[in-house]
Amino acid sequence: MPVETREITFITKGNCDVIDITSQVAEEIKLSKIQDGIITIFVPGSTGGLSTIEYEGGLVSDIKEAMERMAPQGIEYKHNLKWKDGNGHSHIRATIVGASLTIPFVKKKMLLGTWQQIIFLDFDNCSRNRRLVLQIIGE
Amino acid sequence: MPVETREITFITKGNCDVIDITSQVAEEIKLSKIQDGIITIFVPGSTGGLSTIEYEGGLVSDIKEAMERMAPQGIEYKHNLKWKDGNGHSHIRATIVGASLTIPFVKKKMLLGTWQQIIFLDFDNCSRNRRLVLQIIGE
Amino acid sequence: MPVETREITFITKGNCDVIDITSQVAEEIKLSKIQDGIITIFVPGSTGGLSTIEYEGGLVSDIKEAMERMAPQGIEYKHNLKWKDGNGHSHIRATIVGASLTIPFVKKKMLLGTWQQIIFLDFDNCSRNRRLVLQIIGE
Repeated sequence: MPVETREITFITKGNCDVIDITSQVAEEIKLSKIQDGIITIFVPGSTGGLSTIEYEGGLVSDIKEAMERMAPQGIEYKHNLKWKDGNGHSHIRATIVGASLTIPFVKKKMLLGTWQQIIFLDFDNCSRNRRLVLQIIGE
Repeated sequence: MPVETREITFITKGNCDVIDITSQVAEEIKLSKIQDGIITIFVPGSTGGLSTIEYEGGLVSDIKEAMERMAPQGIEYKHNLKWKDGNGHSHIRATIVGASLTIPFVKKKMLLGTWQQIIFLDFDNCSRNRRLVLQIIGE
Repeated sequence: MPVETREITFITKGNCDVIDITSQVAEEIKLSKIQDGIITIFVPGSTGGLSTIEYEGGLVSDIKEAMERMAPQGIEYKHNLKWKDGNGHSHIRATIVGASLTIPFVKKKMLLGTWQQIIFLDFDNCSRNRRLVLQIIGE
């Protein structure tokens, strides 16, 4: 039973940019030799998060507002006082949302709901070239 | 080393109903051919979440209140303005809590703490028939 | 393809003590017979959480403040009224942050970002001897 490690890359706008990565992830499963198993998506960094959502404009706007309530940009962060990069809120949001997401698939198809998409949330305060690790384990 | 994909179903009351699914998950591991490995529990939908908790009435009530603080039902959600289904808060809670949970097991026994149960949180605003995907990988 | 179940132990101060466990986890991967795969880190308990962060003093202080905003210690928890142990906030923080974290590794090296460390958050209100389960699956 093989393990395949792949990656996807994309450009983000930052500032809680919400990217639908479902089709890119699905494509990597298709390209792999594995039929059934799990794919672990991982953010190799500390200012981005992974989750799922019904990807529509209303909720994309609502999740940005929820993140602003959960870890506001305007308050004091010790990280900012120390490093002057102004992204303390980005790190805190990333730690709470989490950098790892595991999704089961069967016959190369992820078992997502009809209205459920995989999202990367770029919490950093600038545009970034992002790389995500995808590791597929199965048979 | 096999991969087994199973599912469990149950009925919820919605409105942050907190369901202890530990025994249903344990039963599926028992029924599988796998002795040691991981079970990935996955919500194929965008208004439910998975986590663990000490399942007792006090904390079940406390987590409902915590979710109301984290993503209040009463505030404006763009999703509601657009779709009129009034469950914007349900989607946001689901995205923050997360749709995937991975638990290791040995000799068919999950390595949970003594006072730790697996919970499904139904954030939707109505009763639902829920289905969860369980994928077991191991030896 | 083997499954290896290991554990690490350490002492915490409690009260949102944030422990960098990266080197302890890396050591267990090195000691295993598995080259490429995933490691699932799991908290067998209901008052601790796992995530990743850029582990520096500013953010360690910021995450403690964020947890205090997310689930304040001073408010009423039904759990405390019932059990008198005063750690209702600890349980709620643990349920929201999550007890499970899965990280891919290749050639025994976890695919973490340069400034990304693995942390255990002890939300309990006292010093604890903590044990984490590490399960490694791969080839």
